[in-house]
Amino acid sequence: MLARMVDPETGAAKGRVKNDTPAGSAAVLDLLVETIQALEDWEDADGIGIGVPGIVETGGVVATCPNIAGWDSPVDVGKEISRRLGKEVIVANDVNCGVVAEHRLGAGRGHQSLMAVFVGTGVGGGMILDGRLVEGPRGMAGEIGHVTVEPGGRACGCGGHGHLESYAGRAGITAEAYRLADAGERNLMVDLANGGPIKSRHIKRALDEGDETAARLLDDAAHALALAVGNAATLLDLPVIVFGGGVVDKLGDAFLETIRRSDRFGGFDAAVPELALAERLDDAGVAGAAIIAADHLS
Amino acid sequence: MLARMVDPETGAAKGRVKNDTPAGSAAVLDLLVETIQALEDWEDADGIGIGVPGIVETGGVVATCPNIAGWDSPVDVGKEISRRLGKEVIVANDVNCGVVAEHRLGAGRGHQSLMAVFVGTGVGGGMILDGRLVEGPRGMAGEIGHVTVEPGGRACGCGGHGHLESYAGRAGITAEAYRLADAGERNLMVDLANGGPIKSRHIKRALDEGDETAARLLDDAAHALALAVGNAATLLDLPVIVFGGGVVDKLGDAFLETIRRSDRFGGFDAAVPELALAERLDDAGVAGAAIIAADHLS
Repeated sequence: MLARMVDPETGAAKGRVKNDTPAGSAAVLDLLVETIQALEDWEDADGIGIGVPGIVETGGVVATCPNIAGWDSPVDVGKEISRRLGKEVIVANDVNCGVVAEHRLGAGRGHQSLMAVFVGTGVGGGMILDGRLVEGPRGMAGEIGHVTVEPGGRACGCGGHGHLESYAGRAGITAEAYRLADAGERNLMVDLANGGPIKSRHIKRALDEGDETAARLLDDAAHALALAVGNAATLLDLPVIVFGGGVVDKLGDAFLETIRRSDRFGGFDAAVPELALAERLDDAGVAGAAIIAADHLS
Repeated sequence: MLARMVDPETGAAKGRVKNDTPAGSAAVLDLLVETIQALEDWEDADGIGIGVPGIVETGGVVATCPNIAGWDSPVDVGKEISRRLGKEVIVANDVNCGVVAEHRLGAGRGHQSLMAVFVGTGVGGGMILDGRLVEGPRGMAGEIGHVTVEPGGRACGCGGHGHLESYAGRAGITAEAYRLADAGERNLMVDLANGGPIKSRHIKRALDEGDETAARLLDDAAHALALAVGNAATLLDLPVIVFGGGVVDKLGDAFLETIRRSDRFGGFDAAVPELALAERLDDAGVAGAAIIAADHLS
């Protein structure tokens, strides 16, 4: 976890306290309080914005955090941190914090509506529509990684089939590359990963060295992304999609160009959105949390 | 065109003046003014809401009305009607008016987020997300009929391929049923339509009489709708989808049941939304236009 003092107007930040996230929601809350209190001048802040890697329900209750061990029941993070620190606290999903940061300070500046898609181990996303972050009644809006792009297709980690992230996320690419290797299609990504998960740098190197399996799997990823974001743009009237995340950061605009060239763009032929690289602002999540908090408190 | 005096709180309406829509935007505007002025007590209204079958840009400019002959360039309907009638005027897309009416007064009551899908000649839709109608920066949000459900699939009227409305809309069903008949698959819908467009009542009768082509094409329609609305529900965190339009009005809940039973629902397995019939309120569009106007004026 990371705490900074942020000016939500400009994103300018000072101070920086970072701690590893412990297991268990009680330990997380304790360390969260300590981390904030360790920040110089924290008491001068107008309020506290917290981005969490979980599903945030209305009012700051964090329902689940699948990536934090031992966080298995809902916790009212907003109320609890506010009680302990004596300040107003706003809690938001961390992906949505990144979306808001890109909208206000990054690649989405000046757009009334946009979607941001983060391609890493999985595929996450979020939307600003008509100037407002969409969170959804259960805090689950933005799950573009789980839209179906291929009915009956690859198994997804969530139990579904044919979802975007099983084609475009690193975990999906890893599963497919190992499956192909097991079936006799030796490929460089698997060689580089050496039995472990395929990293973005393995994908980059395999593409650079002309590995055919890597090229094909990344084409599949690009087609899946083109179908999903084209459909979202048609449904939501999105002029721009901002792409970030480890895979995009590593492959850069060459990957966006593969998506742009796809013949599988979903939706209106005339409404293909602009695809832009996230500006990978330093500590974008922290800046976004501050912006969301400031919006709520103003 | 239809004018009524509406209480936006309850949807209660009085007075009713209806005129056929003429060709050309100038004639439409003139008759719109006359139609409103013919309504008893129209001068008592707090404001005027107008629903138009076209793309409405921010501020009441109607960019295009594909279904009104001779409306081929943008017209600032809001400003013009306001100037002539001396009242504040709010202009909205007519499908969005229907969505708002279902949300406030119909099947979507009590839901913070929903999508409404209208299945008729084509497939239109709109969305309320986190309590607000989403219109989009170009006024084009809600075009679920043009999301791609089958890449490279059936030709769509818009020039694209494999879009939802080419499977679920009456025009798409008509094209496919005639194509099959030409290829030797005689079917009851085509027999009943007798060379013309297939109507919702033809579909209903063919299904009731056990016609296999009708059953198959309506299964295709249901699968396409399940894929598209399931994906939308996952992307936008929608607990409910409201279905209306001529096809749904005629086939009723039996058609929704066909969608519910589809094995092609898009998105999270666990997030399959509730499917509800629109309450087909009388003059829902007029009520929705009044509600949208009242929201803007309050």
